[in-house]
Amino acid sequence: VYETKRRGRRPKSMGDTRAAIMNSAVKLFSRTGLDRTSLREIAVDAGVDPALILHYFGSKDGLFLAMVREKMDRVLSGVLGGGKQPRDIGERIVGSFLTVWDGRDDRRLFAALFRTAMTNERFLGVFRDLIQGELIARIGSIGRGGSERRVALSLTQIMGLAIARYVAEVGPIVRLSKEEITASLGPTITRYLQGPMPGAGGP
Amino acid sequence: VYETKRRGRRPKSMGDTRAAIMNSAVKLFSRTGLDRTSLREIAVDAGVDPALILHYFGSKDGLFLAMVREKMDRVLSGVLGGGKQPRDIGERIVGSFLTVWDGRDDRRLFAALFRTAMTNERFLGVFRDLIQGELIARIGSIGRGGSERRVALSLTQIMGLAIARYVAEVGPIVRLSKEEITASLGPTITRYLQGPMPGAGGP
Repeated sequence: VYETKRRGRRPKSMGDTRAAIMNSAVKLFSRTGLDRTSLREIAVDAGVDPALILHYFGSKDGLFLAMVREKMDRVLSGVLGGGKQPRDIGERIVGSFLTVWDGRDDRRLFAALFRTAMTNERFLGVFRDLIQGELIARIGSIGRGGSERRVALSLTQIMGLAIARYVAEVGPIVRLSKEEITASLGPTITRYLQGPMPGAGGP
Repeated sequence: VYETKRRGRRPKSMGDTRAAIMNSAVKLFSRTGLDRTSLREIAVDAGVDPALILHYFGSKDGLFLAMVREKMDRVLSGVLGGGKQPRDIGERIVGSFLTVWDGRDDRRLFAALFRTAMTNERFLGVFRDLIQGELIARIGSIGRGGSERRVALSLTQIMGLAIARYVAEVGPIVRLSKEEITASLGPTITRYLQGPMPGAGGP
């Protein structure tokens, strides 16, 4: 409390507090990884009582989920405007994904979140549930028959791109511009979402 | 030595010894991960002197590299027969990749190797060098202009598939048959390797 007062912070509104916690979590997670960041450190950085993190997010799992979901919302909000899938849905999804994740700090956050999900069964479960439950349903709701499989196939391409670009940092992928990636991968995603689908009863 | 004799192992030839070490490494790595498996444990399991592992592979990094390369060789040997890329190169690559990795134990090995590469900077470097140096050159040698980028794009799709199927175990991807995956992803890889390439000076 003394620390907070000394730094002259004003009392925060509920929205401000939640945003401040998220900002600090993003900063600390991308620097040192999820496993090595404590809720207490996040609370100190955000200038709030640690109990407030539990109040807003329930747990570190909840904070992880909120961060992934917030990014996912931003990616989708750039894509899913109308009720019908546009013909350039793939380009839109890839372009929106890169807009949200391609910044320097965002890349580091992606790498931190992904590494955590890959090495921690609990976070992997949270991540898998988000994909299987929410993401597939949201994209599928504007799709067509067999959409669960279509969205999942699209995700394999987008995740593979993000891992090569942000985590493994494979040279030829890192060097591509956003426009080149969008032009290359966009038609793939469009085909997965709208093209003929083998073994799924036709297109 | 006593242990080895008691179990009645005969002296091994060089090829046998190397293969025995690899087999034990595959078994132990897929069970407990690379980081938590010691060279000594591998030696005991293979019934050889630990010094022989260093003799054949140099280090644990070398053993990791040998395992990845051996799998890569098997994937490529099923694909790269002649001198010219066949028109169904994508289907061949995806089919061969699944043949090599889709077995139950192979999936677990993939997950163990991938998790290690994602969390250990040294292994990630070994992995990146293998992709950037060897793999891209080998596939690119039967490719066309811009082939480094083409191969790298293909890799993003194949790695994304493998991570969803073997590591994250995303339901709709796990449930696909080999044939469905090959039919869905094959044309993507073929397009990346042979189709028009934006920003790369044409096809």
